[in-house]
Amino acid sequence: MALIVMKFGGSSVSNAEKIKHVAKRIVEKEKKGNKVVVVVSAPGDMTDDLISLAEGVTERPDEREMDMLLATGEQASIALLSMAIKHLGWNSISLTGPQAGIYADTTYTKARITKIVPTKVHKELNSGKIVIVAGFQGLNPNRDITTLGRGGSDLTAVALAAALKADSCEIYTDVDGVYTTDPRIVPNARKIEYISYDEMLEMAGSGAQVMQARSIEVAKKFGVQIHVRSTFSNNQGTIIKGDEKLKSWRKKMEDVVVSSVTYDKNQVKFTMLGVPDRPGIAAVMFGALAKGGINVDMIIQSAPRAKYNDISFTVTKSDLKKANEILKKVKAKLNAEAVVYDDNIAKVSIVGVGMRSHAGVASKMFNVLANAKINIDMISTSEIKISCAVKQDQVSRAVAQLHKAFKLHK
Amino acid sequence: MALIVMKFGGSSVSNAEKIKHVAKRIVEKEKKGNKVVVVVSAPGDMTDDLISLAEGVTERPDEREMDMLLATGEQASIALLSMAIKHLGWNSISLTGPQAGIYADTTYTKARITKIVPTKVHKELNSGKIVIVAGFQGLNPNRDITTLGRGGSDLTAVALAAALKADSCEIYTDVDGVYTTDPRIVPNARKIEYISYDEMLEMAGSGAQVMQARSIEVAKKFGVQIHVRSTFSNNQGTIIKGDEKLKSWRKKMEDVVVSSVTYDKNQVKFTMLGVPDRPGIAAVMFGALAKGGINVDMIIQSAPRAKYNDISFTVTKSDLKKANEILKKVKAKLNAEAVVYDDNIAKVSIVGVGMRSHAGVASKMFNVLANAKINIDMISTSEIKISCAVKQDQVSRAVAQLHKAFKLHK
Repeated sequence: MALIVMKFGGSSVSNAEKIKHVAKRIVEKEKKGNKVVVVVSAPGDMTDDLISLAEGVTERPDEREMDMLLATGEQASIALLSMAIKHLGWNSISLTGPQAGIYADTTYTKARITKIVPTKVHKELNSGKIVIVAGFQGLNPNRDITTLGRGGSDLTAVALAAALKADSCEIYTDVDGVYTTDPRIVPNARKIEYISYDEMLEMAGSGAQVMQARSIEVAKKFGVQIHVRSTFSNNQGTIIKGDEKLKSWRKKMEDVVVSSVTYDKNQVKFTMLGVPDRPGIAAVMFGALAKGGINVDMIIQSAPRAKYNDISFTVTKSDLKKANEILKKVKAKLNAEAVVYDDNIAKVSIVGVGMRSHAGVASKMFNVLANAKINIDMISTSEIKISCAVKQDQVSRAVAQLHKAFKLHK
Repeated sequence: MALIVMKFGGSSVSNAEKIKHVAKRIVEKEKKGNKVVVVVSAPGDMTDDLISLAEGVTERPDEREMDMLLATGEQASIALLSMAIKHLGWNSISLTGPQAGIYADTTYTKARITKIVPTKVHKELNSGKIVIVAGFQGLNPNRDITTLGRGGSDLTAVALAAALKADSCEIYTDVDGVYTTDPRIVPNARKIEYISYDEMLEMAGSGAQVMQARSIEVAKKFGVQIHVRSTFSNNQGTIIKGDEKLKSWRKKMEDVVVSSVTYDKNQVKFTMLGVPDRPGIAAVMFGALAKGGINVDMIIQSAPRAKYNDISFTVTKSDLKKANEILKKVKAKLNAEAVVYDDNIAKVSIVGVGMRSHAGVASKMFNVLANAKINIDMISTSEIKISCAVKQDQVSRAVAQLHKAFKLHK
């Protein structure tokens, strides 16, 4: 008898019909003799609706109260889903994050899970119930409800699967797996059968929308096998697991170097012009940004000309305003020439564990882009990823050309 | 420094503007040097919306899950209200029923409060915060969230006021107090300044919509003084307190016999025809109804004709279907002739502690109705109330005539 954690996102439970459909899928899984724990997000647009309600009351909602408010979304989902399962004649019980023993730290609105004590989950499973747990929430040391930030329900599912030593963690979504690239751009994009945690992490970090990086990190740490699949079909989706487990499968396919092409239009490039070339400058600048909670992605420092540098880097568009404010102060402090930004850029990346042992992958990427007359603005690389910033209106063409050149459709 | 419990209903917090208005009222109270605890209901129609969602999923929603679902309404209210108070620059904290230490029994959807352990409420009050507590909910021995049924938020407010030994419990509503009768029927109805628990109980039981009987029972038991008043004005409303406290005030007004006229159109009359006249019949019939959770109001048993009785009684309309099913079984069991019902009736009542010592109040009521050519179908009386069932289309006229005859407009 396997123990399966199934996670359904908000779009899968946005109305009564969809909730009933999800209930049927859960019961099918239980019928096959599995023990089932379900993690579910708030219905459809409920979270956004609650946020607008709060913004109607005050421009800066208190974060503790925001968590108290937002946690109601998942609480509504679990109750409705449990009712729907009972309607089908199966026994189930809904548990809020705190009831399920999910403990978090005191960072409101984006808490980290500190521990999971799934005593109640075990008890209800052992009494034959399907257990429905609210995603995205936990109990902090003040006994307040906190939420886990974006992608929080995935995180709940993966962490709970780890704590329960579940056999599999199935993430149900409106696509049927992870693709070699965005099928809206490349119609012959292919569903990936197996992918490693590291590749999935790089994909998440470079624009793929499937899962947040945090959940994959936790899955990797605890060796939780993830199956990303569709709410609306029974097809096999994409399995995310460790490198070692992939080895035997990859042996057969020694020529797989690049496993996916991703892109991210949600980037803006800042350049600090004329920065004095002395030690500690980068620390001041990126320190100030980090303090403001801004994640910096690609960084380029130009070769110094007469003791002055230009430093360019990218941040996500939602941080544009805040980053600009911080950088103006930094500019004054460093006595730099100017701060400029360009939001007409996009990032295209190729990801694949095969790169580690294959030379020439980067040069092939640059060649493909050069042949397509696409200018590369910035470059950043990791062991298993190469990213290039290009003009935004060229990124779709870049994705298509790379997908073709690395034969990902086959 | 007084400790005040303020309770706001759902219509007072149905949108962002109203929530901000309520926040201002709360802050005014705090500014006057009071300690303030606020109890609030779910925003506007949210409870009804959640119920329709549940009914879209299943015809018979599981009651535990229904409570899990409905409790989200009040949780949203407390969070939004606390944000609005903080926005005004005052410190506040929202607490769910369980966080506020409100314990209930295991009867889902209409739990009874078993005890209140307001440790957290005291702690937050002592640290200078305005404490916002979710009405209508408690924690049961299974550590499940339960709801307290209709009027549950009033009950939370009164019980919390008792547990905290509050100086006053203010119930804010969209009318500015308790009236001698419904002003929509009698335009010169008068706001009552003071009323006793017993009168208020009889009024609630005979159709007045202001407060549920349960809350008034608790207020009476623990001597909690209630002030029913308007959310939208600073006028003095109606104060509900014990008979003794009313004595000095009533002395001046020795002629006040009847304090209000109420009516209830939400009634249906059942008659069990041709019941054998032997002991224990009533026990069987009303026992079966009680077991089905149906409250019976007025009861009349006709004088026996040839060893057969007719028994008539009223129940609320929402119990019609269920009562009918039960009574058909009882009919078969008792070998009675038939069960019939009439939903074209209404109940008109006069209430007043003065009746106790005044003869002739009942006969005056019957005379007024006779002069108005209104036929009386059933009669029931208590120490401080007389109710008559009349045809539904005559009830408004009955109310107006009685209000005038007992000089309640003066």
